[in-house]
Amino acid sequence: MTQHSRIQCPKLLDKVMSAEQAAALIPEGATVGMSGFTGSGAPKEVPQALAARIEHSVAQGHPFRINLWTGASTGPEIDGALAKANGIQMRLPYQSDPIGRQRINEGAMDYMDVHLSHVAQYAWFGFFGKLDVAVIEVAGILPDGSLIPSTSVGNNKTWLDLADLVILEVNERQPIGLAGMHDVYYGTQLPPNRVPIQITHTQDRIGEQYLRCDPNKVIAVVQTNKPDRNSPFKPVDDKARRIAGHLIEFFQHEVKRGRLPANLLPLQSGVGNIANAVMGALTDGPFENLTAFTEVMQDGMLGMLRSGKLKNVSCTGFSLSPEGEREFVDNLDFYRDKIVIRPQEISNHPELIRRLGVIAMNAMIEADIYGNVNSTHVYGSAIMNGIGGSGDFARNAYLAIFMANASAKGGELSCIVPAVSHVDHTEHDVHILVTDEGLADLRGLSPKQRAKVIIANCAAPEFKDELQDYYDRALHHSYGKHTPMLPGEALSWHERAMRTGSMHAKHKETV
Amino acid sequence: MTQHSRIQCPKLLDKVMSAEQAAALIPEGATVGMSGFTGSGAPKEVPQALAARIEHSVAQGHPFRINLWTGASTGPEIDGALAKANGIQMRLPYQSDPIGRQRINEGAMDYMDVHLSHVAQYAWFGFFGKLDVAVIEVAGILPDGSLIPSTSVGNNKTWLDLADLVILEVNERQPIGLAGMHDVYYGTQLPPNRVPIQITHTQDRIGEQYLRCDPNKVIAVVQTNKPDRNSPFKPVDDKARRIAGHLIEFFQHEVKRGRLPANLLPLQSGVGNIANAVMGALTDGPFENLTAFTEVMQDGMLGMLRSGKLKNVSCTGFSLSPEGEREFVDNLDFYRDKIVIRPQEISNHPELIRRLGVIAMNAMIEADIYGNVNSTHVYGSAIMNGIGGSGDFARNAYLAIFMANASAKGGELSCIVPAVSHVDHTEHDVHILVTDEGLADLRGLSPKQRAKVIIANCAAPEFKDELQDYYDRALHHSYGKHTPMLPGEALSWHERAMRTGSMHAKHKETV
Repeated sequence: MTQHSRIQCPKLLDKVMSAEQAAALIPEGATVGMSGFTGSGAPKEVPQALAARIEHSVAQGHPFRINLWTGASTGPEIDGALAKANGIQMRLPYQSDPIGRQRINEGAMDYMDVHLSHVAQYAWFGFFGKLDVAVIEVAGILPDGSLIPSTSVGNNKTWLDLADLVILEVNERQPIGLAGMHDVYYGTQLPPNRVPIQITHTQDRIGEQYLRCDPNKVIAVVQTNKPDRNSPFKPVDDKARRIAGHLIEFFQHEVKRGRLPANLLPLQSGVGNIANAVMGALTDGPFENLTAFTEVMQDGMLGMLRSGKLKNVSCTGFSLSPEGEREFVDNLDFYRDKIVIRPQEISNHPELIRRLGVIAMNAMIEADIYGNVNSTHVYGSAIMNGIGGSGDFARNAYLAIFMANASAKGGELSCIVPAVSHVDHTEHDVHILVTDEGLADLRGLSPKQRAKVIIANCAAPEFKDELQDYYDRALHHSYGKHTPMLPGEALSWHERAMRTGSMHAKHKETV
Repeated sequence: MTQHSRIQCPKLLDKVMSAEQAAALIPEGATVGMSGFTGSGAPKEVPQALAARIEHSVAQGHPFRINLWTGASTGPEIDGALAKANGIQMRLPYQSDPIGRQRINEGAMDYMDVHLSHVAQYAWFGFFGKLDVAVIEVAGILPDGSLIPSTSVGNNKTWLDLADLVILEVNERQPIGLAGMHDVYYGTQLPPNRVPIQITHTQDRIGEQYLRCDPNKVIAVVQTNKPDRNSPFKPVDDKARRIAGHLIEFFQHEVKRGRLPANLLPLQSGVGNIANAVMGALTDGPFENLTAFTEVMQDGMLGMLRSGKLKNVSCTGFSLSPEGEREFVDNLDFYRDKIVIRPQEISNHPELIRRLGVIAMNAMIEADIYGNVNSTHVYGSAIMNGIGGSGDFARNAYLAIFMANASAKGGELSCIVPAVSHVDHTEHDVHILVTDEGLADLRGLSPKQRAKVIIANCAAPEFKDELQDYYDRALHHSYGKHTPMLPGEALSWHERAMRTGSMHAKHKETV
C-alpha cells in the first residue's frame, strides 16, 4: 500500500505538502488542538516543523507562541520540541514531557490541569476560548473525506469539529487494519439538549468507525511514517509485585464476601510499573472473563487478552512498548474485535464509569493519614504530569484504588504523610490505598479510623513511629478532633524534605 | 381526616403503638437508617424515645449506642437528642446539629462525610456494613402497605429495601396532598446490571409515586403530629445581596456571550442567607422560564415559582421557614405540579447533573488563591456540617460556583487564604468564586493566573496585601513555580488564627 492510496479523497490529495509548508500555515499566537493520548496517535512532523519555525523566528528577534490543547500527553516531537523552542503559552490538559515539565515548573509556561472527561465539553462550552487549528494524525482518508483514526481518538472529534482550520498527518506506519476498531460517538450535545449515553457493556458500540471532517477546512495534508512514542517496558520490580499481590488477595476477599462478582467488574488501570505488575498478576490470577473500561490499552492488557483472561477492552488510545506494538500489529486480527477505541469524553465519562461499576486503579505520589491523595504535585508546587483521568474514574468508581511504594529515595521520603501537599482526590473519593507494605480499606471509616489503618497497613516501617507521633499529638492538641491536625506542622515533612532531602525529623537535621 | 384514616393497611394498623414501645424494639448496637433531609421528613418521636431509653440505660450503668445513617441533616429530635444521650457510635452522611457537631469535634462520636449521591449505592454495595432497622416518616400508608412519602425522600427507598426491620412514623401534620409529588425510581441496579437513567428534563418522571414497603418487615407504626425543623428565615444582609448582584451580572454576561441560554440552565442552590439572596435576585431579575435541579427546595425557590420566573423544581426534600411551610401548605394545588421530589441518589446523580448542565451554587468556608475550596472543616480539624451534595454538583456542573463573604469576625478572618486547611473541591472542580467583593472567573486559567484574579476580585481589602505578599514570596522561593507554595507557611494563617483569633500577621501578634 502506497502513501497516496491512504489519501483516497481527491480534494485532499491536492492539499498534500511538506510538514514545513503546513507548519507555515499555522497563524502566530494560534490556539492549536493536536491529536495524541499518552504518546499514541500524536502528529509526528508538523509540530517539529512548527517548533523550527518558532526557533527561526526567535532568532530573528520575533518570538511567538501558541496555545496547545491535546488529548493527554504526547511525544517528544510535540511537547518536547515546542517546549524547547519556548513556543507554548498555555498547555492543557495533561503533559509528561521532561522539557515541557521543566518549562512549567520554572514558570515559563502556563499549564492548566483538567479532568480528561471535561476537556471536550469545556471546549464546546467556550470556556477555553476559540480553537483555531486542529493538527490530527490519522491512518487514512476515505473518498468522502472522512478519516480512519490512528492509535488514539482522544479529543480528535472535538478538535476537528471546532477548529477553523485542519491539518492532517497521514501516518503510513500506523496499521490500516486499525479501521473499524474505533467508535466515535456523535451524539454529544450541549445542555439542555443532552440525552443518555446508551452504553451498558464495555464493548457496546454507539458511534461511527470514522471521524467526520469537512474537507473545506483542511488546509494541509502531510504524509509521515513514524512510530508512536512507544516507551520501553520497565521490568516489574519486587515492590510492584507485592502491591499487585495485596490487590489480588483483596479482590479474592471481596468476591468471597459477595461484594464483587466472580469476574470482578470492568477494570481501569493507569500505566507504569505498578499497573503492569497488577495486569501480570491478573493474567496469572484466579479471575476469568474480565473486562476493561479504561483510558489506555497498555502491554499488560495485551497479555491479558492473549491469555484469554480478559474478554475485551474499551479505551481511548494505546500506550505500548516497542515489543507491545509489534505484538499488536502482528496479531491485529486477533485483537481487532476485542478492543474498542473511543473519544476520551466517552472512555472517561462519569455517567458510564458509575453505571458500569468500574474498578479504578491509579498510581499516586502520596496519600495522607486521612486518605486524601496527591496525584500531581511535588512539594505542593511542582507539577509532575497532571490529574489525567484519575478523577473521572476515582470519583465514580465502584472501587477507587490508589497505589504507590511506601517510601522512596532509600527510605528518606514517605508516601504516607501527615497532610498531602496538594489534594487531587479528597477523603470522600478514596476507598483503598495500597503500598508494598499492605492495603488499607477505608470504606465506611471516619478520619480517625482511617488514620489507624493507613499507618498500620500502608506506611513504611521507618516512618510508622513518626506518623504515629504526629497523629497522637494532633489528637491531643487539635482544634477539633474530627480530623486531628496541627496546621503549623502538617506540611513540615515536605518543608524538611525540600531543605534536607529527607522527611525524617531527626537524623538528617542533626547531621 | 383522622390519624387512623392515614393508615389504610389493616395489617399495619395492628402495629400501631407508642414511640416508647417502638423504640424498645430497636436492638442495642443496631445500625439504624432514618428518614430526613435538611430537617424535612425526619421521624419526630421514635428517635427521642430511643434517646430516653439510652439515657435510662446509661443511668443504670449499661450504656449502648447505635450507628445512625440518614439522608442528610435531621432535626433536634434525632441528632440533638441522640447525641445528647451520647447514643451514636457512627454517624453518616451529613449532620448540622450543634450537639452532634460538638460530640464529633470533641472526639466522642465517629462521623463519615460522604457525597450524598454515593450513600445509597455504598449501602447497597455493602461498604457500610449491614442495616438493621429503618425508621421512616411518611404522610400515609395505603391499603397495600405502600407509603405516601413525607416532605423528603432522601435515602428512604434504600433504607426500606435494605433494613431487616421497619418502624414507620405517620405524621398527620404533613399534608396528605404531598401524595403524587414524589418520583421514586426503582430502576437502580447493582453493577454490572445498571442501565441509563432516562431523565432529560428537570420535571421528567421515571418512577413511582409511593414507596414500596414489605408489611412483614414493619414492626411498629407510630402516629405523630409535629412540624419539620423549619428554621426561621434569616433576613438577607447587604453582603449576601452584593454576592447575588455579582452573580446576576455574570449570568447576564454569559448569556450575552452565548455561553448560557437566555433561560440559563437548571439551577442548584444550597440553603442559607446567600442562597436566599441569589434566589431573591433571580426573582427580581431578567431571566424567565428558569428550572431547578437541586437537593432542597427552600423559601427562595417558592418565591421564584410564585413569581412565575421558575417553571419547575426537582429536589429530594424541603428546607422551609415556618412562613415558607405555611405558604406551601396553603397553596399546595399551585405548587403540586411544579415540584418533583426524588431519591437523593437521583436528585444528586452525576449522570443527570452533567447531562442537564446544572448551574451549581454552593456556599464555602474558604478558598485558596489557586481555587481549592474548603466546604467542611474549621482549621482543618473541626467538622462544620459535611460536604453534602456540593461535590456531586460541582464536579459535574456546567458551572461550579462557590460563594462566601470575603471576611469574617470583623475582618480578622479571611475567606481567601494561601492554602485551604481542608480540600473538598479541588482546583479542577471550581469555575467561579464569588464574595461580596467580587467574582473570579477561573475557567481556562493556570494556577498563577487564578491567584491573580482571586486576590484582585475576591479577597477582602484588608487581606489583599498580605495575600499578595505571600504569593510574591512563594513565586520567588517555591520549589516549583507551577503552583507557588511555601509548605512551611501555607497553613500559618490558620495556625495564627487558632492562637490569636486573627489571620493578620501584624497587629494581633504584637498586642
